[in-house]
Amino acid sequence: MIKTDVVIVGAGPCGLFQVFELGLLGIHAHVIEALPYAGGQCIQLYPDKPIYDIPAIPEISARGLVENLLAQIKPFAPEFHFEQRVVRIQASPDGRFILETDGGALFDAGAVVIASGAGAIRPIQLRVDGIERFEHEQLFYGVTDETRHQGKRLVVLGGGDSALDWVLRLQPDAESVVLIHRSDRFRAQPYAVQQMHDLCEAQKMQFLAGRVVDYMLVEDKLRGVKVMSQDGVIRQLELDHLLVFFGLSPDNGTLESWGIETERKQAKVDTECFMTSCPGIYSVGDSNWYPGKKKLILSGFHEAALAAFAIKARLNPDEKVHLQYTTTSPALHKRLGVSPDLSDLW
Amino acid sequence: MIKTDVVIVGAGPCGLFQVFELGLLGIHAHVIEALPYAGGQCIQLYPDKPIYDIPAIPEISARGLVENLLAQIKPFAPEFHFEQRVVRIQASPDGRFILETDGGALFDAGAVVIASGAGAIRPIQLRVDGIERFEHEQLFYGVTDETRHQGKRLVVLGGGDSALDWVLRLQPDAESVVLIHRSDRFRAQPYAVQQMHDLCEAQKMQFLAGRVVDYMLVEDKLRGVKVMSQDGVIRQLELDHLLVFFGLSPDNGTLESWGIETERKQAKVDTECFMTSCPGIYSVGDSNWYPGKKKLILSGFHEAALAAFAIKARLNPDEKVHLQYTTTSPALHKRLGVSPDLSDLW
Repeated sequence: MIKTDVVIVGAGPCGLFQVFELGLLGIHAHVIEALPYAGGQCIQLYPDKPIYDIPAIPEISARGLVENLLAQIKPFAPEFHFEQRVVRIQASPDGRFILETDGGALFDAGAVVIASGAGAIRPIQLRVDGIERFEHEQLFYGVTDETRHQGKRLVVLGGGDSALDWVLRLQPDAESVVLIHRSDRFRAQPYAVQQMHDLCEAQKMQFLAGRVVDYMLVEDKLRGVKVMSQDGVIRQLELDHLLVFFGLSPDNGTLESWGIETERKQAKVDTECFMTSCPGIYSVGDSNWYPGKKKLILSGFHEAALAAFAIKARLNPDEKVHLQYTTTSPALHKRLGVSPDLSDLW
Repeated sequence: MIKTDVVIVGAGPCGLFQVFELGLLGIHAHVIEALPYAGGQCIQLYPDKPIYDIPAIPEISARGLVENLLAQIKPFAPEFHFEQRVVRIQASPDGRFILETDGGALFDAGAVVIASGAGAIRPIQLRVDGIERFEHEQLFYGVTDETRHQGKRLVVLGGGDSALDWVLRLQPDAESVVLIHRSDRFRAQPYAVQQMHDLCEAQKMQFLAGRVVDYMLVEDKLRGVKVMSQDGVIRQLELDHLLVFFGLSPDNGTLESWGIETERKQAKVDTECFMTSCPGIYSVGDSNWYPGKKKLILSGFHEAALAAFAIKARLNPDEKVHLQYTTTSPALHKRLGVSPDLSDLW
């Protein structure tokens, strides 16, 4: 059991800046993150895209933003727990919280900040009863190691950029490739669709308009899928690996299961301290909602600052907290580990 | 009469970022500023001091912050009106506003954003009846041109860093220097106080504990001041220039005179759109107050963003405004004048 001041759920930009604002007030935090790295959507979805509306940074890539935030919070040495999801938050009678992750970690925290954005973003699943047990073995929702698919008979599902991109990329080294999409209209870039059609013309791969309705087994391994095409005919396709690219879907349903009141699927908070309906549980960034809420990173930064002051007051009810400025406060300089040049004072 | 979408009162960091957030929504702004430059307190009070709590910028000087903000708002070409104070804001029956400055400029604006911080910061005045008419001629609350005081008999009032700093700096070239402070306890750095005492020992200047109670004239010019020392004795000191360094004091009294409800001298706003008690007049940054308010620059940035959306809705009541992201919106890219690399889409 890890005893700590605060547990932050989510290591996106707002979760990271929450570490900073708590740190300025002398409060230490542990951070639980479903992904294997910090940065949230910024890194998962658009690491190289430029962002233009971070105040006083005319242009920065999403990756650069996260790197800057990690540098900024370094003095406060946050402890990250990656690839774990919170499965339980339980209030104790003394006002503290017990948190448990699916990785088996247990925390005893004085306050909780939910900074989970749109939630852990998961691939949209193929809905065929029982097929989920083949995930990571023969069923894949992403490609982490291309070599694993070399020499295999691949069936790829989907009609977007990811599906077409991987079809074109894996085809040269695969034993065979069949692309299945519900129609012959694709969301992917026309150039990629044309290339796929060219490969079909050259009999280097096949395309089938239809959907997977069942699967076949041999010795408890996936042997193939049954595909119903648009004309209602069911065909059997043998395969080694099934790759599914149906897109990503946010998954924030857990908020309600933790007893937190939601509005539009986000945690309802007040704008004075960004506390949820559960005293001691706060929410900042895209995971919260209040009148006027805009899902902007810069708003999450403000929310994290005010939440930090509220948490400070909760953890130290008898201590009066004055706003100090990082330009002038020796106490803050000590926490930040900086020694600003004092020559301008004289 | 200048007709515009929005007038922003104050060109500090929050006023500047307000230009940006309005610009993203296609709204143009004029900015009125009492100082002769943009940046507010950041430039006036601590241009070279490092700031550590601007999100995603581990360290930046106040001047650097302002420079970055000016670069960021450049695409929106704000029009600045420096060295002017707003003396009148009057609501028109059509919901617009007439603003008048002490420089005689007139504006017809659809909305007003007050981003005046702690107000125009003025030097604390020497309270001796009638002496104010010598300001800029023989009475100075700051030094803009050191050479002007060369060869003069100087009387300097004050006991803080500024007073001692200028005494030490001007003494070598002055005809004479007398420092007057109400006691022999100084707020200035001990090192500077010691240097001043050393100069007194060497008879290169004088220090007198007391306060100015009156002045003497000759041919309508200031000839000297009468100083009551701690023992109640009044001495007469002849002088050419009187320099007063009593510190700075914010002057935000105007908010109430414009009919805006205040709390703790700041404009009361709601946290949904940061509008004051006067519909159409908004306030962001240190000039506003709401429950939980912290006077942090990063909070002002958030406030400016939400105020911009509210102003957009006010100016275009029939238009539905969707939140767009600078990473992905071609409309925002056009307004920003950027062409992000699209290669990552494919």
